[in-house]
Amino acid sequence: MIDLRSDTCSQPTAAMREAMMAAQVGDDVYGDDPTVKELEREVAELLGKEDAVYMVTGTMTNQVAIRAHTEPGDAVLFDQNAHVYILEGGAPAAFSGVLPRLLPGIRGVFSPEDVFDALGVPHRFFPATIPAPVKLLCLENTHNIGGGKVWPIDQLVSVCDAGRSMGLALHLDGARLWHATAATGIPERDYTKHFDTVSVCFSKALGAPVGSALAGPRDFIARARRFKQQIGGGFRQAGIIAAGALYALRHHRARLEEDHEHARMLARGIASLPGIALDVSTVETNIVRFGVTSLPAGEFVEALHAKGLYVLPSGADGVRAIPYLNISRQQVQQAIDIIASVAEAHAADAGVFGSATRVPAGAGY
Amino acid sequence: MIDLRSDTCSQPTAAMREAMMAAQVGDDVYGDDPTVKELEREVAELLGKEDAVYMVTGTMTNQVAIRAHTEPGDAVLFDQNAHVYILEGGAPAAFSGVLPRLLPGIRGVFSPEDVFDALGVPHRFFPATIPAPVKLLCLENTHNIGGGKVWPIDQLVSVCDAGRSMGLALHLDGARLWHATAATGIPERDYTKHFDTVSVCFSKALGAPVGSALAGPRDFIARARRFKQQIGGGFRQAGIIAAGALYALRHHRARLEEDHEHARMLARGIASLPGIALDVSTVETNIVRFGVTSLPAGEFVEALHAKGLYVLPSGADGVRAIPYLNISRQQVQQAIDIIASVAEAHAADAGVFGSATRVPAGAGY
Amino acid sequence: MIDLRSDTCSQPTAAMREAMMAAQVGDDVYGDDPTVKELEREVAELLGKEDAVYMVTGTMTNQVAIRAHTEPGDAVLFDQNAHVYILEGGAPAAFSGVLPRLLPGIRGVFSPEDVFDALGVPHRFFPATIPAPVKLLCLENTHNIGGGKVWPIDQLVSVCDAGRSMGLALHLDGARLWHATAATGIPERDYTKHFDTVSVCFSKALGAPVGSALAGPRDFIARARRFKQQIGGGFRQAGIIAAGALYALRHHRARLEEDHEHARMLARGIASLPGIALDVSTVETNIVRFGVTSLPAGEFVEALHAKGLYVLPSGADGVRAIPYLNISRQQVQQAIDIIASVAEAHAADAGVFGSATRVPAGAGY
Amino acid sequence: MIDLRSDTCSQPTAAMREAMMAAQVGDDVYGDDPTVKELEREVAELLGKEDAVYMVTGTMTNQVAIRAHTEPGDAVLFDQNAHVYILEGGAPAAFSGVLPRLLPGIRGVFSPEDVFDALGVPHRFFPATIPAPVKLLCLENTHNIGGGKVWPIDQLVSVCDAGRSMGLALHLDGARLWHATAATGIPERDYTKHFDTVSVCFSKALGAPVGSALAGPRDFIARARRFKQQIGGGFRQAGIIAAGALYALRHHRARLEEDHEHARMLARGIASLPGIALDVSTVETNIVRFGVTSLPAGEFVEALHAKGLYVLPSGADGVRAIPYLNISRQQVQQAIDIIASVAEAHAADAGVFGSATRVPAGAGY
Repeated sequence: MIDLRSDTCSQPTAAMREAMMAAQVGDDVYGDDPTVKELEREVAELLGKEDAVYMVTGTMTNQVAIRAHTEPGDAVLFDQNAHVYILEGGAPAAFSGVLPRLLPGIRGVFSPEDVFDALGVPHRFFPATIPAPVKLLCLENTHNIGGGKVWPIDQLVSVCDAGRSMGLALHLDGARLWHATAATGIPERDYTKHFDTVSVCFSKALGAPVGSALAGPRDFIARARRFKQQIGGGFRQAGIIAAGALYALRHHRARLEEDHEHARMLARGIASLPGIALDVSTVETNIVRFGVTSLPAGEFVEALHAKGLYVLPSGADGVRAIPYLNISRQQVQQAIDIIASVAEAHAADAGVFGSATRVPAGAGY
Repeated sequence: MIDLRSDTCSQPTAAMREAMMAAQVGDDVYGDDPTVKELEREVAELLGKEDAVYMVTGTMTNQVAIRAHTEPGDAVLFDQNAHVYILEGGAPAAFSGVLPRLLPGIRGVFSPEDVFDALGVPHRFFPATIPAPVKLLCLENTHNIGGGKVWPIDQLVSVCDAGRSMGLALHLDGARLWHATAATGIPERDYTKHFDTVSVCFSKALGAPVGSALAGPRDFIARARRFKQQIGGGFRQAGIIAAGALYALRHHRARLEEDHEHARMLARGIASLPGIALDVSTVETNIVRFGVTSLPAGEFVEALHAKGLYVLPSGADGVRAIPYLNISRQQVQQAIDIIASVAEAHAADAGVFGSATRVPAGAGY
Repeated sequence: MIDLRSDTCSQPTAAMREAMMAAQVGDDVYGDDPTVKELEREVAELLGKEDAVYMVTGTMTNQVAIRAHTEPGDAVLFDQNAHVYILEGGAPAAFSGVLPRLLPGIRGVFSPEDVFDALGVPHRFFPATIPAPVKLLCLENTHNIGGGKVWPIDQLVSVCDAGRSMGLALHLDGARLWHATAATGIPERDYTKHFDTVSVCFSKALGAPVGSALAGPRDFIARARRFKQQIGGGFRQAGIIAAGALYALRHHRARLEEDHEHARMLARGIASLPGIALDVSTVETNIVRFGVTSLPAGEFVEALHAKGLYVLPSGADGVRAIPYLNISRQQVQQAIDIIASVAEAHAADAGVFGSATRVPAGAGY
Repeated sequence: MIDLRSDTCSQPTAAMREAMMAAQVGDDVYGDDPTVKELEREVAELLGKEDAVYMVTGTMTNQVAIRAHTEPGDAVLFDQNAHVYILEGGAPAAFSGVLPRLLPGIRGVFSPEDVFDALGVPHRFFPATIPAPVKLLCLENTHNIGGGKVWPIDQLVSVCDAGRSMGLALHLDGARLWHATAATGIPERDYTKHFDTVSVCFSKALGAPVGSALAGPRDFIARARRFKQQIGGGFRQAGIIAAGALYALRHHRARLEEDHEHARMLARGIASLPGIALDVSTVETNIVRFGVTSLPAGEFVEALHAKGLYVLPSGADGVRAIPYLNISRQQVQQAIDIIASVAEAHAADAGVFGSATRVPAGAGY
């Protein structure tokens, strides 16, 4: 089975396992795990922030960031397809009590004007007690549901400037920030310097088994540690898994371009198939999203699965596939062949079903 | 000063004050207020529901309904401009912990397809734990930010059927349901029978000083009484104000067409002024929303205010005006004259500023 | 029926109804209700605070105060029998997300040492992230479940000083503060000056139909208005009921000693009955709490009810009775006679059932 | 440095590291991690429950259990010194919105009467909307702040029966349940069969680096998985750490009696020292709690630390020490010697400071 469901499905390498095996550990709740501390220092340095905290998932780093930036009844600006909004179990409301206000991003990318519009125009005639006050603006780079879209750096800066000028705190969901850097050559800290806080992930394409980090000002990270502990994120000898994350951080960022090339290869290989809607220029990093127009996406992915390719449906007419660390060029070619065989089997119905032009809302993780 | 900011600005009539003066009262927390109980019975009967509970505001009836239908982490479907989402202080998230999922309504009216799209397409490959499960669908009729738009009954039924078929609970924000009935002749209960629960308001165009009611199944209303008490809504000798609400319910529904006529008169009187964007066919009930294209809405309403007309800005380029109980035909004519004088003073700039074609998001209450 | 269940059962007087009938009103959400504003000014002045806000209940004023002083995950110090903890529907947790830490008050009165003990002793070896940080200390004067106990002013001051020295915010639940003043002659503001915020109630013994006020610093009250609106407390022409509250504030404080005398008369009249456990010295204000030792409290109050006296059971073996505005000396005598007749009918069982020495936890409202 | 702060400070053994190194892993969010699934099956079997879910900490398993059993505004019965109440960051309120109602346990052990008292006595005269309804009863066995106290099985059964008879759900915080079994010989499932849900921990005395499990009915565990994911507990290749937990579960339960013997040895060795208050009969499992009466506990533990013994202060006058996996008999003897040297240096002040008879509230983790 070729598993392209998600880069989260990556397996730790032998060298990474060695690193974990040899890790020095302590009780991280008492601040005693040397490997965790080393990882936190190295991430903070890389992202240009004062401090960082290692947590068990990117959902936790993102949601703790939202919690620490706000109080219940505040509003937070998200892209309409943001992972933190769509794919984190309702946590912005359930855990932080914040009201999402949505920005009309295109593949996750919105404009300063979208931010201004969302903030509304206060006026002395209108009671300030009625709307939820907006406190925080979140961006996602690269953007998962947007198909691995990289935020153009100029637009990112202008959006951050707009948010800053209106008094908003700024958080970056950088679960796949590494890919933006791999694709553009712009160092991570040149993205992150525009934000107060940044979440990055080690267990996606970097290939570590477990964990994410949240970086930001020292006081903010101290506050984040409180909420991490409160929701049960205060693990003990976490150095075991932090060692895997540290290995991934040091050794796997440089190889991401290989995944990007595999993604482009996959896209090129299937773009002209009957019943497939895919603009290869949208494949900027490691995520391939395409529409299927010959049968429902759920049936399409079942047919692929029966032939040995495992991908995710994304809404009624979308499919997501992501090559990663353990996926070879040969497997990508096999994936193309399997998709081709299914597509051609349903060629007669191409165009009948989906339109495949929109970004699906209920997309993969 | 002619005050057209909101129908919530209505003053109680002398007869209504008499009714409140004479009200029999008791401690409503102990279920002993006879006037409150009479109001609750009468509302339940009118709306075709088993029971009803009187509360101090429509925000409370709506938010208690959302709370009683859900648990934190559930998702709720709202129109993108729903009052319960935009204008109730973030309460869906802060009080109920629910995640708003937004429907792309046009003037508040959406389609069954919008509901299906928002629910997504579950698939066995995709973890059910990731998205917030959708539990509740809310409609608003008439729609405030939608400019008093009446839901076409057929579309309302098809949307409710869609929600029902997908297992959703259904709540109607009927703060201005009376206007839908006044405009169409369709009895309130022919709208409400498609919903589990309904919120109606007495302190808007009905002219009572205080209060709203939530109606629904007996068990649900018992549960709602718990949350009403929890957030401090358990008032004591509420019969004083309930008497005003009861009077309004009995005597003021029949006169709403007068407000509607005043709204149309206002709309006709200003639609062709320079720098005003208004399609008179959108004025279906008592709310007049129009765009201003010659200067920012905030400045426009200040200019009106200086001349004796009090209305609300709505976003950067919108204005809302609502005639009600205490507003005479003569005052409407005066309002037209004031708007005309301001519009004509800025005629040279017409079209320069706003587009006025969209429904403003940060609209009046 | 003589109704001594609660002073919340008081009926508005004719003069109070006149005041409500004549009240000038406006839309309070827009800050336009002159009677509400007059009440707020007068309460702030009386309590020696910068500002005040009128709300629909004491539960709302207390819980909004707790909300505005804290954020979720903070701890708050309450007496173990505080009304805000026991009798407000779980709101400290449900609405504010705060963890109650309980003080071992005796009839609601605790010591500075209790406060120090509850705060714990931080140490550098112990992770600060683990316990919920204590942010707020609440007192209740007079204390409802404590049987109308008045806080000795010296002890109140020393407890407030202790809290202040440890960086805690201080809130007074003064729902029955008027009674402390009536009993001791100490002006309200000499109690309230030791607190940041104070909640007072008009619908208990003052006899107004509806409402409470929260007083405190100007910025805090502005913040409280936000949360009042969020939970649906933003009523419209509230001047109708505010007029009753204002009348009560001006005219009914002076008469509270009459209720206190009635309470003592009731206590003296029943203290030596068989099967009644009551120390008359505990009746300091208008609340009479006594134990029943001849049969369960629930059966005892049913027997009283059958004879025309309506009181509340309080736990398994306690009873609460409260004379108020509409209760005459003659009715108090009748109440004594009814209690005597029931007590004597069960005299043979006196001492068999309850101990009646503890303060019941599930006491009346 | 001899580190007796907590059994959470245990280091993984070489064999445990081998097991982790060799673990088969997959993406646990997709339900694909074979080691996690094996651990979950084995725990469920051992505890006699239908299903179990592996999470990153015991705080998470406990708080997710509370969340899944309740909704905001419900009340939950805890012992006054329960770990879930005192030492989990306010999570019952912050994450679940539930109101703690406290039971007066002695070293964590309370009676059926305590449960009945806490539930109160409902009566038709008293509004059911006012108190928070009690839904869940939590026990902790062995009890951390209670000094590793084992619940007598008969009392545990009678308390559970009482809770069950009153319609409560029952949750066991069994973070150190293994110790109850080790001390009494009663199999874990003979404790757990009286509860709906059970939380157990692998990272305390069992010695695994990371993790706990929550066991219960199949539907409940499915619901728990939703909340685990929501708060960011949905880790990926968690098999790495699950392998350590599985190893600990299989190999380290049998050796716990060694820790118990070390704890008794420590207690006997220091009980008669000047300025130490310790009843050796209270040391039933691996936790040693003692009072210090010659100087503040914080200073006492600093003095021990300076001599090479690392323990935790617990409130103003308490100390906690816990031997575990990596602590030898020789190190226990060294700990005794260090404590003796410090105690004797302050012998002159013995009895001056603490009373050391109470269970300290702000105790160690």
